[in-house]
Amino acid sequence: MFSKILIANRGEIAVRIIRACRELGIQTVAVYSEADKEALHAELADEAICIGPAKAADSYLNVQQILSAAIVTKAQAIHPGFGFLSENSQFAAMCEEINVAFIGPKSETIDAMGNKINARRLMIEAGVPVIPGSDGAISTVEEAIEIAETIGYPVMLKAAAGGGGKGIRKVTTQEELAPNFVSAQQEAKAAFGNDEMYIEKIIYPARHIEVQILGDHYGHVIHLGERDCSLQRNNQKVLEEAPSVAITEEKRQEIGAAAVRAAKAVSYRNAGTIEFLMDQSGEFYFMEMNTRIQVEHPITEMVTGVDLVKKQLEIASGEKLTLQQDDITITGHSIECRINAENPAFNFAPSPGKIKNLLLPGGGMGLRVDSAMYSGYTIPPYYDSMIAKVIVHGETRLEALMKMQRALSEFVTEGITTNVEFQMDLISHPNVVAGDYTTAFLQEEFLPTWTPEN
Amino acid sequence: MFSKILIANRGEIAVRIIRACRELGIQTVAVYSEADKEALHAELADEAICIGPAKAADSYLNVQQILSAAIVTKAQAIHPGFGFLSENSQFAAMCEEINVAFIGPKSETIDAMGNKINARRLMIEAGVPVIPGSDGAISTVEEAIEIAETIGYPVMLKAAAGGGGKGIRKVTTQEELAPNFVSAQQEAKAAFGNDEMYIEKIIYPARHIEVQILGDHYGHVIHLGERDCSLQRNNQKVLEEAPSVAITEEKRQEIGAAAVRAAKAVSYRNAGTIEFLMDQSGEFYFMEMNTRIQVEHPITEMVTGVDLVKKQLEIASGEKLTLQQDDITITGHSIECRINAENPAFNFAPSPGKIKNLLLPGGGMGLRVDSAMYSGYTIPPYYDSMIAKVIVHGETRLEALMKMQRALSEFVTEGITTNVEFQMDLISHPNVVAGDYTTAFLQEEFLPTWTPEN
Repeated sequence: MFSKILIANRGEIAVRIIRACRELGIQTVAVYSEADKEALHAELADEAICIGPAKAADSYLNVQQILSAAIVTKAQAIHPGFGFLSENSQFAAMCEEINVAFIGPKSETIDAMGNKINARRLMIEAGVPVIPGSDGAISTVEEAIEIAETIGYPVMLKAAAGGGGKGIRKVTTQEELAPNFVSAQQEAKAAFGNDEMYIEKIIYPARHIEVQILGDHYGHVIHLGERDCSLQRNNQKVLEEAPSVAITEEKRQEIGAAAVRAAKAVSYRNAGTIEFLMDQSGEFYFMEMNTRIQVEHPITEMVTGVDLVKKQLEIASGEKLTLQQDDITITGHSIECRINAENPAFNFAPSPGKIKNLLLPGGGMGLRVDSAMYSGYTIPPYYDSMIAKVIVHGETRLEALMKMQRALSEFVTEGITTNVEFQMDLISHPNVVAGDYTTAFLQEEFLPTWTPEN
Repeated sequence: MFSKILIANRGEIAVRIIRACRELGIQTVAVYSEADKEALHAELADEAICIGPAKAADSYLNVQQILSAAIVTKAQAIHPGFGFLSENSQFAAMCEEINVAFIGPKSETIDAMGNKINARRLMIEAGVPVIPGSDGAISTVEEAIEIAETIGYPVMLKAAAGGGGKGIRKVTTQEELAPNFVSAQQEAKAAFGNDEMYIEKIIYPARHIEVQILGDHYGHVIHLGERDCSLQRNNQKVLEEAPSVAITEEKRQEIGAAAVRAAKAVSYRNAGTIEFLMDQSGEFYFMEMNTRIQVEHPITEMVTGVDLVKKQLEIASGEKLTLQQDDITITGHSIECRINAENPAFNFAPSPGKIKNLLLPGGGMGLRVDSAMYSGYTIPPYYDSMIAKVIVHGETRLEALMKMQRALSEFVTEGITTNVEFQMDLISHPNVVAGDYTTAFLQEEFLPTWTPEN
């Protein structure tokens, strides 16, 4: 096992990783921007190195500074967390070159899954169902029209190298296709230096079902069941739960096996997630693979008892994954609510600032709050607005829901505005209580009728 | 199930009970002393009623005030927590009289177990091994000498109605016996109005092993495995763990069955604990029964997944305990450290005061902190010095130990002195790491060589 690693991230995930390291006896190096001098991750780590100005491009995305920090501190590995450099294959390759382990898959794997056309092809070869669409890159409007006719409108035009919502267009009629194709292609060329496009049918409304997998250096891959992340606002997950009420035990085995095939197809090592969309007939389709730990990983930990971050560290250090598929059992039910410093009454505008008084919910059984906040902490305006994850585990889904209500009702953050009340109303909504929701629910049903109290 | 209950306690256990109630949809009434106006339990409950001055005798032990509060608020039941009125059979009887459910056993059961001579007799009849000693009350020095000769010195003289260390004497030679017997008898008469005495052999060093049980109104009793509470200072538990490394699976079944027999002998209903001493040959002896929830109950919750406070509420409301003995499995390992506002460098003198800045350990898997503290809270000097319980759960005992180290290392309480550093040193001691300790270890081996850092 490593004796010292560097964590190339901030906020709650950096703290989460530091805690796992400490429990494994691994020394930690934090990196922090000038805006994060007082951040908890910098405080809790054994060493902390400032890597530049507040703007992420100058610090948390500053590859040279981060690699220098790793070399200077003699860190044997780098954990990228999520976001920032976590799915940057060049960064992974540079780590490999300077002989610092990248706690993630090989850079080739990130590349293979990063190009969406390539990923689609690999998945088809591995027998994983993909969303109906084009088989390879399409370069002309004529090809696009032909395929769209075959799969039926509405369709989604997507850039092969896409990400962050760039080079992507929803098209509902043939008239809209040509102009959108051209503009998306231009946008892709500008953003990614790659104008390859492809088309997919739109699966909507759907269930967003993702499967957690673990793979080691020796070809052993298992899955840890699914998470239901259908409750989204602007494609951002808001509340996740495991298991999904929409998945039968038979379907769980089927989708789990597909996820394992997907991971094996790219010799995947590390924790990873295969995201699927499941339509209302129960057919599921590969959407994408996330080659990193995810925000919502704790709900899988709660129902399986497996510490995914520790597993990442063990796997990256070259240990064999000894867990077998039969060792994984799903116990009870877990829910996560993402708590953001934002104002739902003003279109969820970020609300950074000083937390004058903080009380995190705590105590009792089956409650976990992953956060990097403390009383007196000032949330900087430069980064993601997520400030805490409230995670509960109950014997039953109802117990988990009640526990979440209880936990959220205790949450105090004086000085800033959060979405706690929004989350409380969301988990009390009859559809959420019944588990009866799709990717359309939050924006089309819940938000139009929701009124903030203040 | 009840729709509203009153909690006749304060601090973390009151908060723990309020949280369980909220998760069950039960309204809560807190009672608080004048010193506890700003206490978290008063803040979190749905209603809060001041029951008198700071001194416990005037508030938390003020039966009339508490019963009035229950009547006024139409509470259907009273949860006594631990300490205070939790083992006061008169209080339990008065609750019964005014038709408010006492969340505990019947008052007769508390009485039956409260008189130690009676409890010994009941246990012998139930086939539960008791510490060698006198069969009934002894009233003369001559009887005492005869029995002491038979069981062998050293012996313990104890008052039948004993508690709080009163009316108890350790006697190592025959010469010491007569004067000690007389003085203990006088002390017992003065303290309890009852001068009945009995004698027991001293089992020391020993393992303090206690078994958690649950019994319902219908005679169904199960046990939930043992806790090892051998690490004690002045008969106060300091650190507890479950399971005990000194207990084999065979012994677990044996001692568990004895605990169930003990509970059935008194038609026990409620959560309860049978405390045993286990000598170095592995023989165990009944010590006493605690007819209430205990401080260290969370470690049993962590390894069994059973919420004991919720079970108390269900049982008291008349629900059947549906859990069967076969449903109980012990998973992983759990440890609790009691965090006290005290100064280990000054003989553990209480250290109340204002917490200027608080950071409770949190996040990650298998960590729970039960506490009623918050940043800016002033710990009053009137009550117990325990301010938090740090509870961890790991797949293995080693993982639990590492997690506890990690958790304690994060603990920040600016403004007061605590035993956190003492606990960190204790859990790092080779004997504790190896699980090789008895009731003698903390005071005879650890403390004499321990030096506080400051």
